[in-house]
Amino acid sequence: MTDISFSPSTPTSLTLLGTGAMGTALGRAWLAAGHPLTVWNRTPERTAALTAAGAVAAGSAAEAVAANRLVVVCLLDDASVGAALADADLAGRDLVNLTTGTPDDARTRATWAEGRGARFLDGGIMAVPPMIGAPGAFVLYSGHPELFEEHRQALAVPAGTRYVGADPGLAALHDVALLSGMYGMFAGITHAFALVRGADVALGEFAALLVPWLDAMAGAAHGTAERLASGDHTTGVVSNLAMQVAGTDTLLRTAAEQGVSAELLAPFLDLMRRRLNDGHGEEDTSGLVDLLRTR
Amino acid sequence: MTDISFSPSTPTSLTLLGTGAMGTALGRAWLAAGHPLTVWNRTPERTAALTAAGAVAAGSAAEAVAANRLVVVCLLDDASVGAALADADLAGRDLVNLTTGTPDDARTRATWAEGRGARFLDGGIMAVPPMIGAPGAFVLYSGHPELFEEHRQALAVPAGTRYVGADPGLAALHDVALLSGMYGMFAGITHAFALVRGADVALGEFAALLVPWLDAMAGAAHGTAERLASGDHTTGVVSNLAMQVAGTDTLLRTAAEQGVSAELLAPFLDLMRRRLNDGHGEEDTSGLVDLLRTR
Repeated sequence: MTDISFSPSTPTSLTLLGTGAMGTALGRAWLAAGHPLTVWNRTPERTAALTAAGAVAAGSAAEAVAANRLVVVCLLDDASVGAALADADLAGRDLVNLTTGTPDDARTRATWAEGRGARFLDGGIMAVPPMIGAPGAFVLYSGHPELFEEHRQALAVPAGTRYVGADPGLAALHDVALLSGMYGMFAGITHAFALVRGADVALGEFAALLVPWLDAMAGAAHGTAERLASGDHTTGVVSNLAMQVAGTDTLLRTAAEQGVSAELLAPFLDLMRRRLNDGHGEEDTSGLVDLLRTR
Repeated sequence: MTDISFSPSTPTSLTLLGTGAMGTALGRAWLAAGHPLTVWNRTPERTAALTAAGAVAAGSAAEAVAANRLVVVCLLDDASVGAALADADLAGRDLVNLTTGTPDDARTRATWAEGRGARFLDGGIMAVPPMIGAPGAFVLYSGHPELFEEHRQALAVPAGTRYVGADPGLAALHDVALLSGMYGMFAGITHAFALVRGADVALGEFAALLVPWLDAMAGAAHGTAERLASGDHTTGVVSNLAMQVAGTDTLLRTAAEQGVSAELLAPFLDLMRRRLNDGHGEEDTSGLVDLLRTR
């Protein structure tokens, strides 16, 4: 009889720089899975939760980097990464940067790290700290493909992994694109609740209508991708831009009736109107993507 | 042995005013289910698809209204409803108005119809014509509760039914709120695709990340409803308004790097910043709803 709970791979020993809320959540997950962990934080007291759980605190970032080949960085911003690693010897290190930044931040940091002898992988965490270690959380990765493959099992401990390409900027780009999509949806949700709030509507029941409605309508993004790829924005269904713009008057009049500012809704309705006035009334909203390009 | 395909209720005979794309889709569903149907349209030729399928075309709207107790109206706008029914005798009629309009349009039309002896139900169709008769499509109803109960089976033939209250304005209010939420989400999707379009990203694979991400994040609306109902906007998770506003800089810098206008995203980020500056940094985004009230 074999022990099916036996893991065939030895847990990887690793270093974690940055033990804020997110770093601490990540560290706890690695410790719980049996990975030896060396930690460092600019404010040393903030490593207490992890050292209590078995991590070793290093006296400096350079010392922490020297302890392990795999070095995960989760700091406030890109400038903090440069400051923390200024005195560290990165030669032969595998640097995994989970610090929030733009695609260009990640590309510049990758060149910097590679110039100092490290392999570099950038990551965008699509979760808040309480979600780490639970299903649903995932991290987008881009950069050095072999680094990702070699450390895939360790990286998959705190959250699911999604590798999106060798260009180190792609994880941040996907991260920001997903967050931007979310904030658009949150803007719509905010306007929707503002509309119904003053009326005799049970808000929980309204949410129970709104959530599955948004789920169903989110699927339109698959069609957007297809139309952008083909360049043919003509809609296959009846509700084209001309018909949708005709309906916007009801949306704006309802907002006015309910005493709700249309500031969150107006820019998208304006964009639809501009595209219609440019002679694209028979199109889907996918054609609006072009209007946002500034160069 | 009983015939389980036998329907216990006799199909209701009904009248349909308006045979545009949506009216025709509704009429086809009723005819397919065996409901005798009288139709009228301002441009008589446009009833041809339904008369070919078994509907009887009336010579005037008044004649069509006289033919059945249940009268469904699906016209261009509220003014068209008033014009079409100007000469009709509505006494004893059950008027179901599926014409798009604002909550106040519906309330005014309800008073008008009741003054002429009709019972009135307003409806908002949450579907495009090709979805009629297929699972997923639904119509929001509000107004006369007994009318709704008595005709529920006939009304459920073309699309699912959701009764949202006796105030005839509530169906339009829910309709507009759901559509507004959708347009916010579409704005987010548009910005997201604009970001990734210029980069080396397979758009179909991006959509495959974006859609489940939006599905997962849409669930936040349940929390929004709870916090609006309780009045306590303090967030239970770590990602409060202060932390979210700190992250907006990365969103805006990424848009600039990618050559994408932030016009769709900016109003929501501005709203978050205003709420933070008002001293609500520990809150969830649910608190933003209050900032949209204009009175």
